[in-house]
Amino acid sequence: MEIFYSADIQDGILRLDAEEAGHCMRVLRHRPGDAVSVMDGRGNLYHGCILEGDSGGAAVRIDSIEKNWHSHPYHLTLAVCPTKNPDRYEWMAEKATEVGLDRLVPVIGERSERKFLGKEQRLQRVLLSAAKQSLKGAVPELAKAVSVKEFVAGCGPAGRQLRLIAYCSDEVQPRSSIMQELREFWGKVENPEIIVLIGPEGDFSPEEVRTAMEAGFIPVSLGESRLRTETAAVTAAEAVYLSLL
Amino acid sequence: MEIFYSADIQDGILRLDAEEAGHCMRVLRHRPGDAVSVMDGRGNLYHGCILEGDSGGAAVRIDSIEKNWHSHPYHLTLAVCPTKNPDRYEWMAEKATEVGLDRLVPVIGERSERKFLGKEQRLQRVLLSAAKQSLKGAVPELAKAVSVKEFVAGCGPAGRQLRLIAYCSDEVQPRSSIMQELREFWGKVENPEIIVLIGPEGDFSPEEVRTAMEAGFIPVSLGESRLRTETAAVTAAEAVYLSLL
Repeated sequence: MEIFYSADIQDGILRLDAEEAGHCMRVLRHRPGDAVSVMDGRGNLYHGCILEGDSGGAAVRIDSIEKNWHSHPYHLTLAVCPTKNPDRYEWMAEKATEVGLDRLVPVIGERSERKFLGKEQRLQRVLLSAAKQSLKGAVPELAKAVSVKEFVAGCGPAGRQLRLIAYCSDEVQPRSSIMQELREFWGKVENPEIIVLIGPEGDFSPEEVRTAMEAGFIPVSLGESRLRTETAAVTAAEAVYLSLL
Repeated sequence: MEIFYSADIQDGILRLDAEEAGHCMRVLRHRPGDAVSVMDGRGNLYHGCILEGDSGGAAVRIDSIEKNWHSHPYHLTLAVCPTKNPDRYEWMAEKATEVGLDRLVPVIGERSERKFLGKEQRLQRVLLSAAKQSLKGAVPELAKAVSVKEFVAGCGPAGRQLRLIAYCSDEVQPRSSIMQELREFWGKVENPEIIVLIGPEGDFSPEEVRTAMEAGFIPVSLGESRLRTETAAVTAAEAVYLSLL
């Protein structure tokens, strides 16, 4: 199933930009009259018919809409410190999207060796293509990079959100397991919202953990294995996904 | 913590080959008399002292041994069809090793586009470096590639093993969830052994699934998300790992 992407939708017509149209009209040799499926990245899948176009752009008449197409029953934010090797961050973004991710926030920790993200546009494309490939109607939002403390401060009141911070030691307080916290959380609230903070190679500083705890983040363990930053982030996304199965 | 690797151990002395000694003596500038830690890839971690050596090789006197160093409480075999892009297979091998893997078997399915593995030596190095990096004493074994049916036939009687085959449809029989099967399995047997079969992009053929079922494999679902082959394999390893937390 080939899914195209468009954010340019009005009056029952959607337009494919040069990149999408090039793939649709030139690579896949679609012609006016062909039926195509197009996602808007916000959870809607449109079924329609190509009216006109070439590899520079195309217009599609919308015949039907599937809302919340292939959505997952929660809203997951991963706030993850950049990895030294950006490819590992892109890989994490792809895998978390396949499993189920809604918002990715690059956060810079006090102990982060890498103090910036970089390659945002490339990461955006990774998120879009992973969403298309795994048939997710909604493309995860990529937030702008902020410090861990800025991110925590910006979270506001916890309300009914589950807020977890993956921490590698029991120094600040004995941690519970991420699975235990998730099992206790499910079923308690409608439209469950989860935020997981994942630290840099050098882990969070105890002060960052305390600041997060004051904002309602619960320090959790991801188990006994020593995981790389990107593996920890994917493990957290997998924990959220698998704990519902 | 820097861990070296050696399979050449006798009479209380272990020898680092040129690659490991080069890293130890040239890159990290260790000298005779320095204390080092060396794993044998079979679960033992040796602590000792460099007797002599240069970037071409080194001898280490063993002072103490930690057995079953950082082992996990199960034995997991992943039998995974090669991915079109070999990098994705290497990535999967690295991540599954970080989380917990004991044996990786490349299996060729009837619908596999890629009918061979290739780059075995490179994959071996990925498994070793992932084990070292994640502080796992045992390096996962890489078996030689076989067809899905050969692999299933070679499994022998199921005994008390949990055998799962991740399948994308309920065509052959309604699937249970992998987490459900794992939750029911834990605690029932000592030294639990688990085998998970992961299919190619085109999924297993119904006949392969039936053959596996005759050998005691239970068709399971990895959830609603459409996962790439390598993501499915990592998800299976994560399910085994996380279902114990």
